[in-house]
Amino acid sequence: MKELTLWREARLATLSGHEPWGAIEDGALLTQGEQITWVGRLSELPRDAAVAQEHSLHGAWVTPGLIDAHTHLVYGGLRAHEFELRLEGASYEAIARAGGGIRSTVAHTRAASEDALLAPAAKRLAALKAEGLTTIEIKSGYGLSREHEAKMLRVARRLAGQGVQVRTTYLGLHAIPPEFEGRADDYVAACCDDLPSLHAEGLVDAVDAFCENIGFTPAQVERVFQQARALGLPVKLHAEQLSDQGGSQLTARFGGLSADHLEWLSAEGVASMAAAGTVAMLLPGAYHCLRETKLPPIPLLRDAGVPMALSTDHNPGTSPVLSLLAVMQLACIHFRMTPEEALRGLTLHAARALGLSDRGQLLAGQRADFCVWDVDHPRELSYWLGGRPLINRVFGGVPDRELA
Amino acid sequence: MKELTLWREARLATLSGHEPWGAIEDGALLTQGEQITWVGRLSELPRDAAVAQEHSLHGAWVTPGLIDAHTHLVYGGLRAHEFELRLEGASYEAIARAGGGIRSTVAHTRAASEDALLAPAAKRLAALKAEGLTTIEIKSGYGLSREHEAKMLRVARRLAGQGVQVRTTYLGLHAIPPEFEGRADDYVAACCDDLPSLHAEGLVDAVDAFCENIGFTPAQVERVFQQARALGLPVKLHAEQLSDQGGSQLTARFGGLSADHLEWLSAEGVASMAAAGTVAMLLPGAYHCLRETKLPPIPLLRDAGVPMALSTDHNPGTSPVLSLLAVMQLACIHFRMTPEEALRGLTLHAARALGLSDRGQLLAGQRADFCVWDVDHPRELSYWLGGRPLINRVFGGVPDRELA
Ligand SMILES: [Zn+2]
Ligand SMILES: [Zn+2]
Repeated sequence: MKELTLWREARLATLSGHEPWGAIEDGALLTQGEQITWVGRLSELPRDAAVAQEHSLHGAWVTPGLIDAHTHLVYGGLRAHEFELRLEGASYEAIARAGGGIRSTVAHTRAASEDALLAPAAKRLAALKAEGLTTIEIKSGYGLSREHEAKMLRVARRLAGQGVQVRTTYLGLHAIPPEFEGRADDYVAACCDDLPSLHAEGLVDAVDAFCENIGFTPAQVERVFQQARALGLPVKLHAEQLSDQGGSQLTARFGGLSADHLEWLSAEGVASMAAAGTVAMLLPGAYHCLRETKLPPIPLLRDAGVPMALSTDHNPGTSPVLSLLAVMQLACIHFRMTPEEALRGLTLHAARALGLSDRGQLLAGQRADFCVWDVDHPRELSYWLGGRPLINRVFGGVPDRELA
Repeated sequence: MKELTLWREARLATLSGHEPWGAIEDGALLTQGEQITWVGRLSELPRDAAVAQEHSLHGAWVTPGLIDAHTHLVYGGLRAHEFELRLEGASYEAIARAGGGIRSTVAHTRAASEDALLAPAAKRLAALKAEGLTTIEIKSGYGLSREHEAKMLRVARRLAGQGVQVRTTYLGLHAIPPEFEGRADDYVAACCDDLPSLHAEGLVDAVDAFCENIGFTPAQVERVFQQARALGLPVKLHAEQLSDQGGSQLTARFGGLSADHLEWLSAEGVASMAAAGTVAMLLPGAYHCLRETKLPPIPLLRDAGVPMALSTDHNPGTSPVLSLLAVMQLACIHFRMTPEEALRGLTLHAARALGLSDRGQLLAGQRADFCVWDVDHPRELSYWLGGRPLINRVFGGVPDRELA
């Protein structure tokens, strides 16, 4: 049996119970291997607990480990030059001529070996870990063929070796690849054909698509969702980002994990998500970088009790965001979410958006993934933009930095 | 005579000459003590240079050290609770009742000892240094009495011991302190009386004020500017942030270093700044945090050739920003500045806003303050939000991290 470790002198934001933040000021945690086995006031520590090891956290605040549940972290090339050209006043045509847009990412991703994709993705992952990331979702979607989608997903799986847990998502329906230009339905059929073998290889935890007038129609998305259902895979959707396509209702109809973006979400969409238990995944980084002005209907989501998750939506085109703390700040500034909602969005609700119930709170039975912060209150995590408040990250019971 | 150090295999963004970014791809630097003595292509290194020490930068990009030329870094307390209350829907009256606003910062600053102010300011400074800061301006303005303004300025001076250069600014005319409520002119007179002795103690490098309908009138600002002129101190101004008060023309009339904020700057203001050589100090962090929608007239400034500087405007109320890289990203997204303008804004033009001609470019004769970045191109410094691209910071010729 694994030994018990006691983490003392902590202020806990458990995100459980009825207190704001689920706060326990004179808190302590017991962990055993990768699990939390007890959480409470130090004075209420079970007397018979056979503690083998103790760490003082010196009154620091502890939150659950951060979860980034919507990312496109693996890709070839960057789009920094395109970013610069746009700011220098280049037209979209000029940028397209200069090889910009998602096509450039697809070309670079296809051209890259698995190792060549792994190295820069690992560097980006390290930046996110340095701010407390413990679980990440990574999508395919820049390969757009069986071979290259599989390559991306294998890279995502390999990143699990870097001290985080990884969930993979197949996003074949991200864009139409050049060789299927004008034949969207044929491409959708090809994706449906590819999915069973990708799943059989253990590369797929969930299925996503981009439902938009510049993406795929609800009918096309439904085909790949049906294939996912046949394989027992959960679905999620890039929905109502630029227009209301009814994608959230479609996702809800499939009992989907999350509908993501949601700037144009209707009241009907909110109601269907609430009924289905589908999480609203809000992406303030993309909203910010695209200078959107149409806000997702946060008050409606709040009133309907739809859990609101947040994530970086890290991608090279519309959200080159590598800071989970910045995402919290942007969610407060742009979306008027509260600091507590922002933290729940990157922990508890992000876990729900991945279908994971074993993380996202500080509770007995949850994974021992948590962050130790040099702040006077967890609201500060949303207040600052920049700064380096993370003292330690504990992943599966093991701290990144050694403790006395 | 101090020994020469050669920094080889660098890609230089010198911000000098006519190339974009002043780029030298196969670049090298010679430094001697705290100075750069030569910059060029390695192949053109003077043969007689008696190099005592060599470092390879392995092809990394080098920029001038970053300069944050408008900050309120020293203060007591935080305003995170107020930030949270506002997002929870509290009214301004409720926040005032809960002790919010600048008055709370003044009360905490007055109550704090010099050491108590130093510790958190040093921590904030460390966050900025970790992203390449080498020179910082720090304002008073939360003491609002001779004693407490002097205390803030002494703390600012002490921060120069932390591996950065510090310029101090007296900002007595930041707000009217409670004991002068309703007697603004008396307070202005008291500030004018305090300034000579503060200057005599070596605490003041420049004089600033907050010119606004909720701040001080141009006539009041002019009085303190006249006192500054009598003492030979340069001036600058918080101008046209919430309305057009003609503060930029007033500043130009005094040959001011910079006019800062400038959302409501008029064409006449632009023209007067251009004629006087006054820098436009733009503050995208405050714009962002306040959710402003009125943009400073960047195209007019650009056309008039007014140098545009950027800074964090770090302060606990309206810009709790601790990331110079985030400032660059916000300047590109919100203000549509180009990545090159953003870098010039935090180096060359920030130096000009402090009246310093010995830094801000990579040139012989400049201070050996520079940053080494893990990027493929310096445009990436504005592209990412988050990430940790700084490999090394060299301050006065001395690298923070040892090199082979
Ligand atoms: Zn996405
Ligand atoms: Zn200011």
